[in-house]
Amino acid sequence: MKALQWQGDHLLILDQTKLPFVEQYREIHSYKEMAEAIKNMEVRGAPAIGAAAAYGFALGAAEYRGSGEDFKDYMDEVRAVLEGTRPTAVNLFWALRKMEDKFREFLNMNDIGNIRAALINEANEIAEDDRRMNKRIGEYGNTLIPEKANILTHCNTGSLATVEFGTALGIIRTAHESGKKIHVFAGETRPLLQGARLTAWELLQDQIPLTLITDNMAGYLMQQGKVDMVIVGADRIAANGDTANKIGTYSLAVLAAAHQIPFYVAAPTTTIDLKISGGDEIPVEERDDQEVRKIMDVRIVPDEVSVYNPAFDITLAKYITGIITEKGIISPPYSVNMVKMLVR
Amino acid sequence: MKALQWQGDHLLILDQTKLPFVEQYREIHSYKEMAEAIKNMEVRGAPAIGAAAAYGFALGAAEYRGSGEDFKDYMDEVRAVLEGTRPTAVNLFWALRKMEDKFREFLNMNDIGNIRAALINEANEIAEDDRRMNKRIGEYGNTLIPEKANILTHCNTGSLATVEFGTALGIIRTAHESGKKIHVFAGETRPLLQGARLTAWELLQDQIPLTLITDNMAGYLMQQGKVDMVIVGADRIAANGDTANKIGTYSLAVLAAAHQIPFYVAAPTTTIDLKISGGDEIPVEERDDQEVRKIMDVRIVPDEVSVYNPAFDITLAKYITGIITEKGIISPPYSVNMVKMLVR
Repeated sequence: MKALQWQGDHLLILDQTKLPFVEQYREIHSYKEMAEAIKNMEVRGAPAIGAAAAYGFALGAAEYRGSGEDFKDYMDEVRAVLEGTRPTAVNLFWALRKMEDKFREFLNMNDIGNIRAALINEANEIAEDDRRMNKRIGEYGNTLIPEKANILTHCNTGSLATVEFGTALGIIRTAHESGKKIHVFAGETRPLLQGARLTAWELLQDQIPLTLITDNMAGYLMQQGKVDMVIVGADRIAANGDTANKIGTYSLAVLAAAHQIPFYVAAPTTTIDLKISGGDEIPVEERDDQEVRKIMDVRIVPDEVSVYNPAFDITLAKYITGIITEKGIISPPYSVNMVKMLVR
Repeated sequence: MKALQWQGDHLLILDQTKLPFVEQYREIHSYKEMAEAIKNMEVRGAPAIGAAAAYGFALGAAEYRGSGEDFKDYMDEVRAVLEGTRPTAVNLFWALRKMEDKFREFLNMNDIGNIRAALINEANEIAEDDRRMNKRIGEYGNTLIPEKANILTHCNTGSLATVEFGTALGIIRTAHESGKKIHVFAGETRPLLQGARLTAWELLQDQIPLTLITDNMAGYLMQQGKVDMVIVGADRIAANGDTANKIGTYSLAVLAAAHQIPFYVAAPTTTIDLKISGGDEIPVEERDDQEVRKIMDVRIVPDEVSVYNPAFDITLAKYITGIITEKGIISPPYSVNMVKMLVR
């Protein structure tokens, strides 16, 4: 199963808002459609958003009908629209910067004729890199997993959150494929239920044993000794190791520490943002109140009820046992070891 | 608003499974109907369950059509059916023991003619006591609350969870009525959403400012300094202070400790079970898997997905700052101070 696939002149995406009961693919033909799909979370997961935005940028260039004079201004607008979709995951900005660099390179060479092909090529590269990085994250992560393990994870970090395979879920897949006895506890991940709808769906397809829990059961599971380790993904990692990830991640990290359970973050190094020194500088997206007031379009409270809906939280570095990247596993102190790993 | 009201020959209950969108009352005319309503959580909350079971016992006696010979055996069956509804909340067993004592007292006096009236009277006493105890819990609890406070609570511990007024929510009510500036964060409380459906509904009616959150947001709120204290209810408190309460309570307690936020349990002393030395001896009810697979009758995952559904968890005494009862506030060490308070 693939979250997104380039089809020569358009992107095919699996609409994740409809899963698990409806498996509906959608063709994306324009950068504005791409931006909408990212905003609405038809495509979600930091690495998938990065690749999707790259394809969006390429689509934007393909849509351009001008004479060339205002191409740069037009592409600035394309980039701004794509950047405006979701503020937290840094992969989005990273991918668009890469695309922009490629665009300028060809623009500077005055090679406007080949610009479109070069951008599609670059987006394909970004997607292919993500695939490769996930496989390597899986291999490094697997070295941490015992022969038999109960692994708690949160949200969805699988094939649906990436171009293919997954980060935290990629590690779980690798461990399972290598013959280890893996059982997954998947937190349902309110408000949008990515754990229940997406992670459970992926694990069922791969026949990896799982138990779905509501998010508030994690502490009790740990108290009973039922969790051997926690592995989650990341949307942005600051230079000190503080990590933005799906709301609920921080609570799991504190709970894991209180029960002496290792807590790992799995992410490609493109998720690391060295320009940001600590988690308090990471912009945390707040989404529509109705996501909390409703569950899968069913209203649970009236509109008079005020709600809070941060899509992410910040897990402090002190609660993170290790960060698993495609270049290797980073241990604390992150402010030192992360830079070392990146220049490797 | 009242969760249950005795109407001379039957009990009127507000069906809590239908709230907040449908306010539907239901007449309970038999002990079996009462048992079903408790099991299905049309009536829920430890103190309310206690009173409801007492009325169920009285209804059972009123239904008896025998000659008197097998009255005792029949009432043993009535009690067994009511006791079999929900295993965790000790108030159920406490109330039924009180009713049984009254029944035996009249049976021993051979005063079968007056037994029914005596039992209704006893159930009314239990209900009236609960009302009074809640008011006192509110007054004691209010002494802990500053002039301005953001209070996080879980599940529903208000008028709907008791005969009237509430335990943790009773404290919040008392503080609000006394003119303090109270703002409540209500955790939605998956799987059955008592926080979203019931607590938000009660607070709206009383015009107490509230913000609804998904359960997994609590840690992030605390990290941001948005929570001044946590107050929850209890279903059973062991002799060492370990407390069974709605699933998710334990996670909140660990999170509160990690952020140096006071964590209080509010409950009548009838919730204390000195026969049980520690939390690991408290039976924790596991409920139907479909409660997790569905939300308000809407399916979120297929039946192939395994789920875990403990209705309660155990909060270790070391995480509890104080236990607020109708007799006063109990501080650690609970194994000593709880007994002292009870004999007062």
